[in-house]
Amino acid sequence: MKLTILGSTGSIGTQTLDVVASDPDRYEIIGLSAGSNVSLLVEQALRFRPAIVCLATKELAEEAKALLPAAIRVVYGEEGLIETAADNDADVVVTAIMGSRGLPATLAAIEAGKNIGLANKETLVTAGHIVMERAKAKGVSIIPVDSEHSAIFQCLNGEDRKSLSRITITASGGSFRDRTREQLVGVTVQEALNHPNWSMGAKITIDSATMVNKGLEVIEAKWLFGINYDQIDVLIHPESIIHSYVEFADNSVIAQMGLPDMRVPIQYALTYPERQPSLCGRLDLAAIGKLHFREMDYERYPCLRMAFECGRAGQSAPTVFNAANEVAVARFLNGEIDFLAIERVLEKVLEKHSVTDVNDVETIAAIDAWARQAAAAI
Amino acid sequence: MKLTILGSTGSIGTQTLDVVASDPDRYEIIGLSAGSNVSLLVEQALRFRPAIVCLATKELAEEAKALLPAAIRVVYGEEGLIETAADNDADVVVTAIMGSRGLPATLAAIEAGKNIGLANKETLVTAGHIVMERAKAKGVSIIPVDSEHSAIFQCLNGEDRKSLSRITITASGGSFRDRTREQLVGVTVQEALNHPNWSMGAKITIDSATMVNKGLEVIEAKWLFGINYDQIDVLIHPESIIHSYVEFADNSVIAQMGLPDMRVPIQYALTYPERQPSLCGRLDLAAIGKLHFREMDYERYPCLRMAFECGRAGQSAPTVFNAANEVAVARFLNGEIDFLAIERVLEKVLEKHSVTDVNDVETIAAIDAWARQAAAAI
Repeated sequence: MKLTILGSTGSIGTQTLDVVASDPDRYEIIGLSAGSNVSLLVEQALRFRPAIVCLATKELAEEAKALLPAAIRVVYGEEGLIETAADNDADVVVTAIMGSRGLPATLAAIEAGKNIGLANKETLVTAGHIVMERAKAKGVSIIPVDSEHSAIFQCLNGEDRKSLSRITITASGGSFRDRTREQLVGVTVQEALNHPNWSMGAKITIDSATMVNKGLEVIEAKWLFGINYDQIDVLIHPESIIHSYVEFADNSVIAQMGLPDMRVPIQYALTYPERQPSLCGRLDLAAIGKLHFREMDYERYPCLRMAFECGRAGQSAPTVFNAANEVAVARFLNGEIDFLAIERVLEKVLEKHSVTDVNDVETIAAIDAWARQAAAAI
Repeated sequence: MKLTILGSTGSIGTQTLDVVASDPDRYEIIGLSAGSNVSLLVEQALRFRPAIVCLATKELAEEAKALLPAAIRVVYGEEGLIETAADNDADVVVTAIMGSRGLPATLAAIEAGKNIGLANKETLVTAGHIVMERAKAKGVSIIPVDSEHSAIFQCLNGEDRKSLSRITITASGGSFRDRTREQLVGVTVQEALNHPNWSMGAKITIDSATMVNKGLEVIEAKWLFGINYDQIDVLIHPESIIHSYVEFADNSVIAQMGLPDMRVPIQYALTYPERQPSLCGRLDLAAIGKLHFREMDYERYPCLRMAFECGRAGQSAPTVFNAANEVAVARFLNGEIDFLAIERVLEKVLEKHSVTDVNDVETIAAIDAWARQAAAAI
């Protein structure tokens, strides 16, 4: 399999390369892209020998070029990212890039007929209606890499989609799941980054604590599985062992379980419909002993309520939700605002926004830019 | 769908008719059989209007005949059961009959090209190698009705069997799951019949408490799913919400869950590969709150250890295990022996037996008869 990884130096990107390294005869790396982590991208390129690598800027690209053999083409910026995604003979593009920058490159890869291992949430959140339509038109598969969506995707194997009645996305509750709202006042960045189950990047760990991450997953699920928001439940499950489940017309429930290890859904996206031995350990439910579940509390986690509202409103609303959140989380991580201000920023930006139609990437980019400005100004 | 139910007055039989009654346009009842419960069989026949009904003896059949319209043929005994199973235009035969009497009728139905909804454990326990071979030769499907096997069957939907690495059969632990072996001394029949989760017949409820039932399920699973005993785990899960699960080559686990309600697996066996609205309520994991798991204790449940040993020995051993158990349970229910004597009877009969080849139903019947005599004499 010929593979390109957009965002190869991030958490999903490096774990994708772990999967590749565990079965090197199966994969050939065609392209890698990173933001600014030149040293790691160069290390990866020297090991996996892609045809093309991409960095965020011309300066970073030149730095990398000096360290790489001439056979590896080094590109940069949005144009470079699109070339890396689309303009080569990769079969599959793993979109592990973070944020709304992932959208144009993902669309370019779809137009080039490449199957997508989707780890960039914003692609479907901001442009689900456009992306799914283009994927269908081009006959490409969009296989989720997220553990929750991979779980649902696996649970639907061999089932008639018409029998699907509901999906339940599980949520660990994040780093503050056992705190009341009062106890969230003044929490530190360090505390927020301490996720109980999953080893992930900083942005997604904060999104886990605010439940924004789950909100983005709900919107993604709507598009990936072609269902209504009324058919999507979110359930708190602190152990993250049941990664998500589906309920069918006969009230039979199929769940996917395992240790919390992203390498399983990453690998499944690459080997589907096959399954291959993985780097993840075996689940031992007897050793775990107990699994806990509790109802989602939308008062405790207002960002999830907002995500459902934006999802239902559709069109530009999820783009605003996502862009405002990116800025708010960055401001929190920079120490500019406190944790509870993330949701206040979201709320205020959404209040200012009137939902409009979005039928192309340019409009999405404009709304995204407006929301970022608005979120920065609060 | 044209349907025959062998054992229509038992727990599975009546629940199968509940499923039929919930969607009457989908099903046509062709045949019904019962042991000695004439009044219920007659009631069922007057309601569902089968072409043929069967009772255990000539006397019982004549009693029924007097109460039924002439259009319903009334037969009896083993010959009558085989006629009911095989000699009509039913598409599917649900074998909800109890005990080793189910085997010849099931084999006759397979030879007649009918698909089997398998609820008679003894069919595969005593003759798995013969039955699976005949089903394959005749191109008929054997769809499990047992909740555990139905769960595994559902989890394997759309998956490549070559990727299956293990299955885990869950066990509630039965009516005495929180007692030590010492606390089993002198337990009453009434206590033993008090199953925590499932509403089932007396024999299977006792088999649940001794874990013989799980042992029979392990042997069935071996044949149904074509796996080795080393690939089968049994896990104590008191809530009976996860009905069983499978593990694949990538250590991803797919589980089937739901409320403990036999009408779901019964219906699934009838509608497979479709799913239809069911009579069972919806699973609400938040309301349940916790699921517990603990390792199987083969010292606490020696009958399960014996079942694995008999399964591995193969050939005549599972037949002896099953027949001796039927007698021992009957003797316990009659107040002849105490609860812990069930396992002692099994142990002693197995000690006396030398495993021999069994390649036909007659040999199985002879070994079955020997084991019954031996179990009655201890």
